[in-house]
Amino acid sequence: MKPHGPIPAGYTAIDGELAVGGRKASALVKEAGGTPLFVYSRSLLEQRMADLRAAMPPALKIHYAMKANPHPAVLEVMADLVDGLDVASGGELAMARAAGFLPREISFAGPGKRDAELLAAVKAGVTLNLESAAEARRALEAGLACGTAPRLAIRVNPEFELRGSGMKMGGGAKPFGVDEDQVASLARTIIAEGCDWRGLHIYAGSQALDAAAISDAQGNALATAARLTAEICTPLPHLNLGGGYGIPYFDKDKPLDIAAVGARLQDLLDDHRNDLQGTEFAIELGRYLVGGAGVYLTRIVDIKTSKGVTFWVTDGGMHHQLAASGNFGAVVRRNYPVALASRFDAPGEVEVNVVGCLCTPLDRLADDVLLPQAQVGDVVAVFCAGAYGASASPAQFLGQGPAREMLV
Amino acid sequence: MKPHGPIPAGYTAIDGELAVGGRKASALVKEAGGTPLFVYSRSLLEQRMADLRAAMPPALKIHYAMKANPHPAVLEVMADLVDGLDVASGGELAMARAAGFLPREISFAGPGKRDAELLAAVKAGVTLNLESAAEARRALEAGLACGTAPRLAIRVNPEFELRGSGMKMGGGAKPFGVDEDQVASLARTIIAEGCDWRGLHIYAGSQALDAAAISDAQGNALATAARLTAEICTPLPHLNLGGGYGIPYFDKDKPLDIAAVGARLQDLLDDHRNDLQGTEFAIELGRYLVGGAGVYLTRIVDIKTSKGVTFWVTDGGMHHQLAASGNFGAVVRRNYPVALASRFDAPGEVEVNVVGCLCTPLDRLADDVLLPQAQVGDVVAVFCAGAYGASASPAQFLGQGPAREMLV
Repeated sequence: MKPHGPIPAGYTAIDGELAVGGRKASALVKEAGGTPLFVYSRSLLEQRMADLRAAMPPALKIHYAMKANPHPAVLEVMADLVDGLDVASGGELAMARAAGFLPREISFAGPGKRDAELLAAVKAGVTLNLESAAEARRALEAGLACGTAPRLAIRVNPEFELRGSGMKMGGGAKPFGVDEDQVASLARTIIAEGCDWRGLHIYAGSQALDAAAISDAQGNALATAARLTAEICTPLPHLNLGGGYGIPYFDKDKPLDIAAVGARLQDLLDDHRNDLQGTEFAIELGRYLVGGAGVYLTRIVDIKTSKGVTFWVTDGGMHHQLAASGNFGAVVRRNYPVALASRFDAPGEVEVNVVGCLCTPLDRLADDVLLPQAQVGDVVAVFCAGAYGASASPAQFLGQGPAREMLV
Repeated sequence: MKPHGPIPAGYTAIDGELAVGGRKASALVKEAGGTPLFVYSRSLLEQRMADLRAAMPPALKIHYAMKANPHPAVLEVMADLVDGLDVASGGELAMARAAGFLPREISFAGPGKRDAELLAAVKAGVTLNLESAAEARRALEAGLACGTAPRLAIRVNPEFELRGSGMKMGGGAKPFGVDEDQVASLARTIIAEGCDWRGLHIYAGSQALDAAAISDAQGNALATAARLTAEICTPLPHLNLGGGYGIPYFDKDKPLDIAAVGARLQDLLDDHRNDLQGTEFAIELGRYLVGGAGVYLTRIVDIKTSKGVTFWVTDGGMHHQLAASGNFGAVVRRNYPVALASRFDAPGEVEVNVVGCLCTPLDRLADDVLLPQAQVGDVVAVFCAGAYGASASPAQFLGQGPAREMLV
């Protein structure tokens, strides 16, 4: 038997069934028209932000990285909750505008920005986080083309990395950002050429659960920003400290201690009261804000036994939950939090493998987990489905098409 | 420096540029309206089938597993080339019908067939490869519901496995098919209940490059089928021997010796002349038929150096080429065959990392490869893109959207 990850807080049982936003899974599935279905909870999104605001320094801005979940209804909720938005493509920019984000709230990072995307962003008045000197040149040209001073920040490829992070994005040769030692000269150039200088973006990694590691990275980012600001000889208007706040996906993962992160960050900001005077500070989070607020519901189509092993074959799978299947950057596949939604408060009774409907052995949702007895037609829930789920999975694989999505 | 995989045969240079189907990459990109672009070659598809036909026993039927590439134009070409088609969902069935495949040429395998999919298949007269006793029951009920004897075959979960295969689909507890020791009794039941008995489907694995391993698996499949047929006490109308024929993706991979496979398969069929009398034999291939006939073209948006390492940042990436990025079942990431399409016949000059435009370190197309000197705007080609490319990748990730696709 293998463990599964911890079920996030906020999910309860009503009449024995998993409930989201006070409504039973069966009722949600009925309203949505069937399974597979992603359900996102407005109240869990709101609660998450409220908890985070309470823990972070009051002056800290919180931005949402919409790559984690670009569903229109989620975006609309987030537009009321956060102070800014990070987009990673022209496509995301269009979705952000449709959801009501104002251009001045939006920044655009990404190593492969096309000319048309730069032009659209400059025209709209979106901040570009520049990834290279060549991109800076193209952004300035876009500004000339549309007669607007482009709002430009520089993404720094920092010398340090985020310890224990799921994905390192600093500390070595990287396609992201401008190497630290070239930032100041590039900044001076673009300021001299008349850009609207928006500051620095320093993103060192993602999905860390260790508060001390995040604090260290934030301390390093602040020190780097202060050093670069002194070299640039222009006050720093804005510093995006990046993200890295992780969520528990797997057995033994413990939630990040945001109170500790917040307290330490306040101290760090106080330390830089003088050398980063007047700077606005922001963190940029995706997964941390939305991951736990989503659940993936899929119906059992067949229950079968092969050589003594029980398989629940569902109508969902890796085409909607690539990361949960273990095929999205995972070195070793481990089980996401999973439950039998139809009998959410029942004890574990049987050891089962939960698989998807695809004709490939990669399509696994849970290996050797202990769950209550189920019947064909019952609904399985995979948690932590609010981030990097629907939009980060190959929905067209094997002709399946996308899952339904709803916000409750 | 790291090697990349061998570029498949059939790709040439015209005026120094990569050409597909006699046309230069730049012309194809222009016609398609831009990059990223998948180009599939009709002549390479035809040549591949012709070579395979010549090597396989004359009586052997060759089926196409459309999960490898469901693009409508590819399907239409394949409809003229192959003897049958395997679909894995109701969605694929609809695409197959639209491409001109006749229901009698189609079989439908997949562990999570929904009732509506079973009904549509039975109504159309498509053969169902049954994955469990419960599914058999539902298929018979679908037959009663529409007044048609369902065309039923049983997919066997075999006792043996395909040695050296990329994905094992037999030899142990599996969600696929019916365990060997339960097949005969299930077959007798569904025959007694009046189904149109279509025989057995035995699929032991995929992506093997060793002819002897494939021959062993085919020999095992034939022996299994003969033994089961004797138990079922009804002549076997059809035996689908599965696939498993691999293609070279990585350095040192050698093409499968299909002449050896074909010669050995003829011997095996001769051996079973008596105990599988009147049986029609088929193999079912996906990747082998279409993988090499497709190439992914993506344009360089930025060339940058970070700490001495050169990155070509392209407008494509893992959202179209998940497998090439190393995030689709790979344990260790290795480089697919890759080239600078704009200077296809130029020698290697620079060591580069080719990355996609997504803001994630997972988005890699080639690590540390030696390629000719390039400029922004040049086009990179990733080969072996004809199978499990566009449809097996998360096209909506980071708001990017699908690639263009064309057949030439």
